[in-house]
Amino acid sequence: MKAGFQGVHGAYSEVATRRVLGARCTAVPFDSFEEVFDAIERGRVDRGVIPIENSLAGSIHQNYDLLLSHHLHIVAETHLRIEHVLMCHPSSSFRKLTEVRSHPQALAQCSNFLRRNKWLKPVADYDTAGAAKAIIENSALSSGAIAGAFAAELYGLRILKRHLENSPGNFTRFLVIGRTPWRPQRGVKAKCSIAFTPAKNTAGILFRILGVFSLRDIDLLKIESRPDPRSPFEYLFYLDLAGSPKEERVMRALEHLGEMVTHFRLLGAYPVGKGEFYGGR
Amino acid sequence: MKAGFQGVHGAYSEVATRRVLGARCTAVPFDSFEEVFDAIERGRVDRGVIPIENSLAGSIHQNYDLLLSHHLHIVAETHLRIEHVLMCHPSSSFRKLTEVRSHPQALAQCSNFLRRNKWLKPVADYDTAGAAKAIIENSALSSGAIAGAFAAELYGLRILKRHLENSPGNFTRFLVIGRTPWRPQRGVKAKCSIAFTPAKNTAGILFRILGVFSLRDIDLLKIESRPDPRSPFEYLFYLDLAGSPKEERVMRALEHLGEMVTHFRLLGAYPVGKGEFYGGR
Repeated sequence: MKAGFQGVHGAYSEVATRRVLGARCTAVPFDSFEEVFDAIERGRVDRGVIPIENSLAGSIHQNYDLLLSHHLHIVAETHLRIEHVLMCHPSSSFRKLTEVRSHPQALAQCSNFLRRNKWLKPVADYDTAGAAKAIIENSALSSGAIAGAFAAELYGLRILKRHLENSPGNFTRFLVIGRTPWRPQRGVKAKCSIAFTPAKNTAGILFRILGVFSLRDIDLLKIESRPDPRSPFEYLFYLDLAGSPKEERVMRALEHLGEMVTHFRLLGAYPVGKGEFYGGR
Repeated sequence: MKAGFQGVHGAYSEVATRRVLGARCTAVPFDSFEEVFDAIERGRVDRGVIPIENSLAGSIHQNYDLLLSHHLHIVAETHLRIEHVLMCHPSSSFRKLTEVRSHPQALAQCSNFLRRNKWLKPVADYDTAGAAKAIIENSALSSGAIAGAFAAELYGLRILKRHLENSPGNFTRFLVIGRTPWRPQRGVKAKCSIAFTPAKNTAGILFRILGVFSLRDIDLLKIESRPDPRSPFEYLFYLDLAGSPKEERVMRALEHLGEMVTHFRLLGAYPVGKGEFYGGR
């Protein structure tokens, strides 16, 4: 099986890909999320693995937009704990470093470490794994990189320090997407992700919408509202709920929801992710 | 008045600061959001202006975390349309450029432009305005920067192209925070931002919580759930609602809410922002 991800080999997305699809899957790097979606639609890869929310940085609306503009299905999810590692060339050492390269967001997440080691100049790079790869390609002895441990292993770099991140609660949720929907199986706990716009923008419409699920004892696992950039004065909602549309009460709830919303999309029904747990029920 | 923002002079945050607090306010740059919060608490600045959500990139949970860990108040909000501009040294021109520098997120938001102009190598930088500043500091004739038009004006750069962004719906909402709460005024439409954890994690608790507002005809302007990174199995909710706690029905609704939640925080009551509109009612 071939699975597309955004970034270069060694990226956190590739780690998520291997965790959720197994070590035997071929992870194919793409420059952008759009290209991952296009590659699945054109059959160049079988699956895509995309980050959808991070515990510190929030939901990645761009990927929700791509889910809405393409006709693909979420077929699985996984959670990955983001552990930033300092690495250098195998012929170098901590004392030889003068700069540390990484994605600006990763550098910001390691600001306490950088403040304690002021002689290390933080330098922005395109992505975390790219910074690791560049050390080997350029035989850079004075540059360190902040990336995942997987990147160090992949490029043969020396790991100098683990857990550079300020906050231990740094998790990213990834979705696996494909051309055909997942088939609910007996005994496998499922969840659904849906997106919709309420038909009327009145006080209380959300209360009535949630009643559709609450009155049927269906658990909500995520809810988020977002002003719709394509349609001023309208809100787009993302909802994750427990169960699959193969269950009658879920099917009936989605039908009932249909009476109150416009632009409804079932983004996918898929097994509840195992991965590293960071909350949720 | 002094207001702190994260970034270097010319940043989108500084533009938001000047729009919402007026051109006479002194905008003071800080390296990190933590330092902005600390500077307000220590009285080194009077206000802080922080991004809280972007229409493409989502809510900035890190700043919600800082709001929860500090005892400051949201006192105003504004929306800023993010318009990416290509700029170069005043002695250079588009044909002389070989690379374009910016924050990786800004480069990604201009990927269509970069794909059409493949000879321009995208280079990651710490921030958009920092990339602009570096052109002048290094007299770099072959480097362009992608940043806001304000940065070009500030550093005397030549604007080559406007609206480089792929999506026109790129807006950031900024909050103004201070040590003392805003005082509701007659005739000024107010809103509140609150954060809480439901006391019981049962199906339907959110439905009952929203009933507190719906049954009192109080409009909800934003709702978002987030697994609490500090407390597995618990959810943190962000809610924005129309009205201020000076209104009796809002005060009673918040009291009623108090019966169903733990860790309740009123993050602030403040006038509904004008700024550039991107949805909302």
